[in-house]
Amino acid sequence: MPLSEIKQILDFIVEIEKLKDVYRKTRPVGLDRYENSAEHSWHVCLSALMLKDYANEEIDIDRVIKMLLIHDLGEIDAGDTIIYASETQAIKDEEETGVKRLLDLLPEGKAEQYMALWQEFEAGETPESQYAKAIDRVPPLLHNLHGNGHSWSKHNISKEQVFSVNKRIAKGSEKLWEVLELELENAVEKGVLN
Amino acid sequence: MPLSEIKQILDFIVEIEKLKDVYRKTRPVGLDRYENSAEHSWHVCLSALMLKDYANEEIDIDRVIKMLLIHDLGEIDAGDTIIYASETQAIKDEEETGVKRLLDLLPEGKAEQYMALWQEFEAGETPESQYAKAIDRVPPLLHNLHGNGHSWSKHNISKEQVFSVNKRIAKGSEKLWEVLELELENAVEKGVLN
Repeated sequence: MPLSEIKQILDFIVEIEKLKDVYRKTRPVGLDRYENSAEHSWHVCLSALMLKDYANEEIDIDRVIKMLLIHDLGEIDAGDTIIYASETQAIKDEEETGVKRLLDLLPEGKAEQYMALWQEFEAGETPESQYAKAIDRVPPLLHNLHGNGHSWSKHNISKEQVFSVNKRIAKGSEKLWEVLELELENAVEKGVLN
Repeated sequence: MPLSEIKQILDFIVEIEKLKDVYRKTRPVGLDRYENSAEHSWHVCLSALMLKDYANEEIDIDRVIKMLLIHDLGEIDAGDTIIYASETQAIKDEEETGVKRLLDLLPEGKAEQYMALWQEFEAGETPESQYAKAIDRVPPLLHNLHGNGHSWSKHNISKEQVFSVNKRIAKGSEKLWEVLELELENAVEKGVLN
């Protein structure tokens, strides 16, 4: 029954709106408030599209974008965790349960492919997921670089942590990491990153 | 020079972040604050993906998503206008100039395809743009339907206006409009829409 299926999807659309109320650990450039995970998701999708030519391997950008559209849905139930907190199995499990709960709102037969896509992103083993994960790390870096390192200093993140966590960007795009590494080194020189 | 191109794209990524500070005329379900155009853009992309099987014509969903990722960029310079305000040529021109300014930040040769995609969305003549435009109208309806018609009453929007503007959803998906029309009729019965 298409009409009742559409109603189910509209309920899903209302439910995922809660991602607009999940707050992250950085402030968008020029804004006083913290970023939420819904606007972040838009930002990384468009960033991925514009940077696609610099991925290490040939990627299917349409799969990357779908991955990034759903990559943070688990935070609706689990909340956002700063990347420098150890990504524990407990957090990952809670997110996975949350994504499953949401996708199960959809009409039968729709959940599986998106669950698989979410798991592929999390595993980070395919070219698409490695590139998507690289892009996911870019906005918080830009927020700190253009925002006096506000999140690094607030959460006592050392330069060693910043370099060690973010050098994983190179797994998705070596060229992108090359540019960002230089920007981070400049931030160290300016005393924004210690 | 890939590295300087990447720097240009990073500047673009920072600049489009301003869309997170463009506020719309409805509040997300359950939230006290108004919605911004960046989180709205994410919401419509994911909504379009989940509802794609109900488009009137066969569509390329990946083109639809790209369209919706960029469809509101013009608001960074022009601001958001409620759909019930006449969509004047002056507003459209201002948005187009704004989109062009942003895309021109990208390395040479990248702007044209996205400008064309934005214009295709605006013109609303292809199956993809008709479907994208239909989906773009869904969240404000859901916000009002689940939020006591807050934006309709605040802006003195009559039920005649709501039906006449939103029946255009049928141009992209007749089935979706069938469901929403019923929901709107229920809202009229309950006195939420007058």
